[in-house]
Amino acid sequence: MKKVYLDHSATSAVDPQVMEVMLPYFSSEYGNASSLHALGTDALEALNDARNKIAEVIKTRPEEIIFTSGGTESNNLALKGTAFAALTNKSPKTHIITSVIEHDCVLHSCKWLEKLGFSVTYLPVDTYGLVSPEQLEDAITPQTLIISIMHANNEIGTVQDIKELGAIAHEHEVYFHTDAVQSVTKLPIDVKEMNVDMLSVSSHKIHGPKGVGCLHVKKGTKIDPVLHGGGHERGYRSGTENISGIVGFAEAMKLGEERRPAEMPRICQLRDMLIEGALAIDHSWLNGHPTKRLPINANFCFQFIEGEALVLRLSMKGIFASTGSACSSKSLEPSHVLQAIGLSPEDAHSSLRLTLGIENTKEDIVYTLDVLPQIVEALRKISPFKHSYT
Amino acid sequence: MKKVYLDHSATSAVDPQVMEVMLPYFSSEYGNASSLHALGTDALEALNDARNKIAEVIKTRPEEIIFTSGGTESNNLALKGTAFAALTNKSPKTHIITSVIEHDCVLHSCKWLEKLGFSVTYLPVDTYGLVSPEQLEDAITPQTLIISIMHANNEIGTVQDIKELGAIAHEHEVYFHTDAVQSVTKLPIDVKEMNVDMLSVSSHKIHGPKGVGCLHVKKGTKIDPVLHGGGHERGYRSGTENISGIVGFAEAMKLGEERRPAEMPRICQLRDMLIEGALAIDHSWLNGHPTKRLPINANFCFQFIEGEALVLRLSMKGIFASTGSACSSKSLEPSHVLQAIGLSPEDAHSSLRLTLGIENTKEDIVYTLDVLPQIVEALRKISPFKHSYT
Repeated sequence: MKKVYLDHSATSAVDPQVMEVMLPYFSSEYGNASSLHALGTDALEALNDARNKIAEVIKTRPEEIIFTSGGTESNNLALKGTAFAALTNKSPKTHIITSVIEHDCVLHSCKWLEKLGFSVTYLPVDTYGLVSPEQLEDAITPQTLIISIMHANNEIGTVQDIKELGAIAHEHEVYFHTDAVQSVTKLPIDVKEMNVDMLSVSSHKIHGPKGVGCLHVKKGTKIDPVLHGGGHERGYRSGTENISGIVGFAEAMKLGEERRPAEMPRICQLRDMLIEGALAIDHSWLNGHPTKRLPINANFCFQFIEGEALVLRLSMKGIFASTGSACSSKSLEPSHVLQAIGLSPEDAHSSLRLTLGIENTKEDIVYTLDVLPQIVEALRKISPFKHSYT
Repeated sequence: MKKVYLDHSATSAVDPQVMEVMLPYFSSEYGNASSLHALGTDALEALNDARNKIAEVIKTRPEEIIFTSGGTESNNLALKGTAFAALTNKSPKTHIITSVIEHDCVLHSCKWLEKLGFSVTYLPVDTYGLVSPEQLEDAITPQTLIISIMHANNEIGTVQDIKELGAIAHEHEVYFHTDAVQSVTKLPIDVKEMNVDMLSVSSHKIHGPKGVGCLHVKKGTKIDPVLHGGGHERGYRSGTENISGIVGFAEAMKLGEERRPAEMPRICQLRDMLIEGALAIDHSWLNGHPTKRLPINANFCFQFIEGEALVLRLSMKGIFASTGSACSSKSLEPSHVLQAIGLSPEDAHSSLRLTLGIENTKEDIVYTLDVLPQIVEALRKISPFKHSYT
């Protein structure tokens, strides 16, 4: 059976070239980068090279990169790191601003910080998923410590104007963090140009290994560590460095960035073909912004069916997709993102997210557009909502 | 040149058998364990298998295992997790007990928690590095929330009687955590028998990959997450699961435990041969307990020389060793562990830690015992302390 992987926003296969550079660091080059002996200094050199490669892609200095265990940790570190620093330094800045469509690792960190005495403003979004710059500015108070707004949404793919939002934060001397887990290697990233103090990246979304990521932290940003210990990563993130993972992550960043200029227009074209074909199904629409959108993302509603049933039927045909974020795929709650853009719980339950990657071909899309309408039709026939449909 | 790796407490090479089971999870089996489609459910199955394997080794139930990014995160989660839960639930239990010879990830977490209002008792140790059960009991107050005492020390190898210490904690209804990063697969582990509520493990110390570990948390123990997000690991540790790492970690645990009955007596014999030979050098002694000791550990002082110089000279001869903990190898401060057992800063600076592993042979020890005395003698000749020596 044909296999078509259309769930790249959930995770991606490690690129063979990435695997090749990683392999020696498991077996022959297994030193601890903190060790003084030759195996240790070799590991340290690999760590430094990786840091340089990543800094180059996001246009920052290597000393502004903190390696973490992934996007979730990076987002936790950005929010809790600044919050903890405010707390332990008894700063009066105890207000956080974020949006209602952030990833759960941002939202749940914020909810938890509220228990520690922080106040949080959760900005609404418009029907496309865009944060209003005016509303952001209005929400800022003298107590505002940090603003965290994601670059590209993981479910609906909407891309915020981070440069503009970051400028507003900086006018008011407030830290600005963006979760760029979905956008790195899909969109150009330049931390200075984008006016961000902190930016989160994950390796496994860009054909690197799972369990590694980084947080860019601009020099001078006051954060406390989330993980204390032996003082790795200049004291901001302790724990023996995952050298094989970091080396693979850096290679994936480099490759992704090299391939971006040619690959993203190609993928975007396939994605548009997919959107056009899928919207030929009646009672369907595209969620998210029509143009301010991640090139790999398509998110649909097919009314009167359950997205979960659609994902399972597609899987039986070798097409791997999702209803929204992978993390919450087993939750019975409808997507908080789709509800935030105004969908009813029923419509939010009828969503399908298809996210493309470099291995996808025109044949994959043709196959998907052949299979998808049949499954939607079959599911609608047994739908409890069929009376309202027929 | 012959290569002899004697720094297994810093890190270890990934076992080829471990590597073999990991490989598919980078390339063909790369699904996100939270995804509903077939690639996702395959990943979830691998995750469950890994959890079962690890639970079996430490004699617990799979649902009492929380996967983390390594030993540092596990220790942070044990301490901060219970402390945060006390804080957010406004519990009056704000006292922590630990020892002065814990790993930096425990000590620095405690120091930081003091800034949040917790009080911490740092128990002293005797000249062998043992915590006194009487002193532990005396330190407990009605406010005591958690006691954290490591199983085997990472520098001097001293093994505490965790069963006895854990029983004292439980008599007073205080949580007991042990950092077992150095002892797992070297000593038998049984969390019930040992009276522990939480136990930390790291993969890369036992021939598994770096960047992965776990925390055993007994059912009913109240902890807040350190990393919030999509609700992975039953909500206690969010972030896309590092399947390849976790699968490798579990295989390393299984292999290590299978090999332990035959390997540890063999390694212990080599270690004793090493100790006997090294102590033939004058002005030298063994740090740590003579018998309550990790089978892989030897820690010496060779007076009048700098341990760091010794490590570098040994490295030039292909012998990889350390002065103490890898994390603090670049610190100019003498080891807090060696100072805690009563060594002067000068003597603490003259230490050498040799930690053995399964790949070491008798020839390795013969070679080391040939090279080591020559280097010690050469260094003493140029030592600033030579007048006091000669």
